[in-house]
Amino acid sequence: MSINHEIQAFFDRKSVRSFQDKPVTDEIKNLIIDAGIAAPSAGNQQLYTIIDVEDQVIKEKLAVLCDNQPFIATAPVVLVLLADCRRWLDCYHSAGLAPRHPGPGDMLLACEDAVIAAQNMVMAAHFLGLGSCYIGDILENKEQVAALLRLDPLVVPATMLVFGYPTRQAEERTKPKRPSREYLVRKDYYSSLSDPELRRMFDDLFAEKDFDQYMTAFCNRKYMSDFAQEMNRSVQAYIEIFTHSA
Amino acid sequence: MSINHEIQAFFDRKSVRSFQDKPVTDEIKNLIIDAGIAAPSAGNQQLYTIIDVEDQVIKEKLAVLCDNQPFIATAPVVLVLLADCRRWLDCYHSAGLAPRHPGPGDMLLACEDAVIAAQNMVMAAHFLGLGSCYIGDILENKEQVAALLRLDPLVVPATMLVFGYPTRQAEERTKPKRPSREYLVRKDYYSSLSDPELRRMFDDLFAEKDFDQYMTAFCNRKYMSDFAQEMNRSVQAYIEIFTHSA
Repeated sequence: MSINHEIQAFFDRKSVRSFQDKPVTDEIKNLIIDAGIAAPSAGNQQLYTIIDVEDQVIKEKLAVLCDNQPFIATAPVVLVLLADCRRWLDCYHSAGLAPRHPGPGDMLLACEDAVIAAQNMVMAAHFLGLGSCYIGDILENKEQVAALLRLDPLVVPATMLVFGYPTRQAEERTKPKRPSREYLVRKDYYSSLSDPELRRMFDDLFAEKDFDQYMTAFCNRKYMSDFAQEMNRSVQAYIEIFTHSA
Repeated sequence: MSINHEIQAFFDRKSVRSFQDKPVTDEIKNLIIDAGIAAPSAGNQQLYTIIDVEDQVIKEKLAVLCDNQPFIATAPVVLVLLADCRRWLDCYHSAGLAPRHPGPGDMLLACEDAVIAAQNMVMAAHFLGLGSCYIGDILENKEQVAALLRLDPLVVPATMLVFGYPTRQAEERTKPKRPSREYLVRKDYYSSLSDPELRRMFDDLFAEKDFDQYMTAFCNRKYMSDFAQEMNRSVQAYIEIFTHSA
């Protein structure tokens, strides 16, 4: 089947962490944000608020708080997508109602709403010639992030996005290969991959590498890292207000 | 600024809940899934598994479990996107490592990974002429959903998507209006909307409706509903294994 260029774009788009020193106009930024707001949303509620970080000092603090990634502070556009469990509650209170306290399902749904909007922004930006990168590390360091961005207790950073025009180097970077569909799709029921399947998936991706060595290094560098453990502590702290009725 | 047709697509795409009796070929389905797999993913880990539900009996059970929405069982393609905190853990164990138990941050990150892939599928489907709808209700009824889909305890349904060719009626439905950017975007810091802002946002959306009446009805029908309360119970139950070290 011939793939048209719109579909090809999903396969071409890759993360960009190196930006030209070229500003993004408000017109372009707003168009990207509006494409995000046009995304599907649970009950058409837009359970998120977007913080458009323009202050260079805040960008630099975020770069430090997000596992020390200086490129964040060099991005022309930095958007923090907040799961917002407060806005509708305020509407209900304003109407004189006594709504229940939001629970963990409300929080998860709001995080997903935010991320659905985020991915529309990422692809809209791509169609406009801009590169982007998700910064999942915004889940870390709850206390400092919440203080820096003046968050409400019912508002949780779902993710962060940075945008800008890619450098040539960023454009020429090879997109990391994805596992084949056969390893990620199951028919009708879940089943985990067998040990041979896991190793075959790995060999398909990294023909030249040793499974055990790679996994040891990856596990230490990512899964057992300080930042991953901090992310879990921080998310636990965000969740607490949603898991205890207040 | 003139908006090209790729960007326009983000504004045009709307949820479809009524499908033609026309099958979706495997070629098209696989292309949509592959566009999802091509999405950005935390550490390029694809922290999800996709269940392609072809069994009509399972579709019908899901339609009941997801707040009794019969249209789900009529969709030619039903995909459950599972946040999978097990696959990499299995890799680490296979390599002889002793990884930590996954935490709530791992679970949230995996749910977000799944939803990012989902939104690529939604937009890719749109570019291919297919309609789609998110079914957030898959978060409900943990025990029955987990039994039906044979889920591992470390695997959580992040969302569900249905796809198919839209009926003319579905195509002609007006997309619900979104709030203007000014209510959803804040500069540099979070702040909640004031009462006048909340009411102005509402008036912009629903000029002819009464705020208090609308909110009372919406709150009762959605936020205070049995399904919303069940969603919170169910998500709490999914989260528990991630919030207690095992």
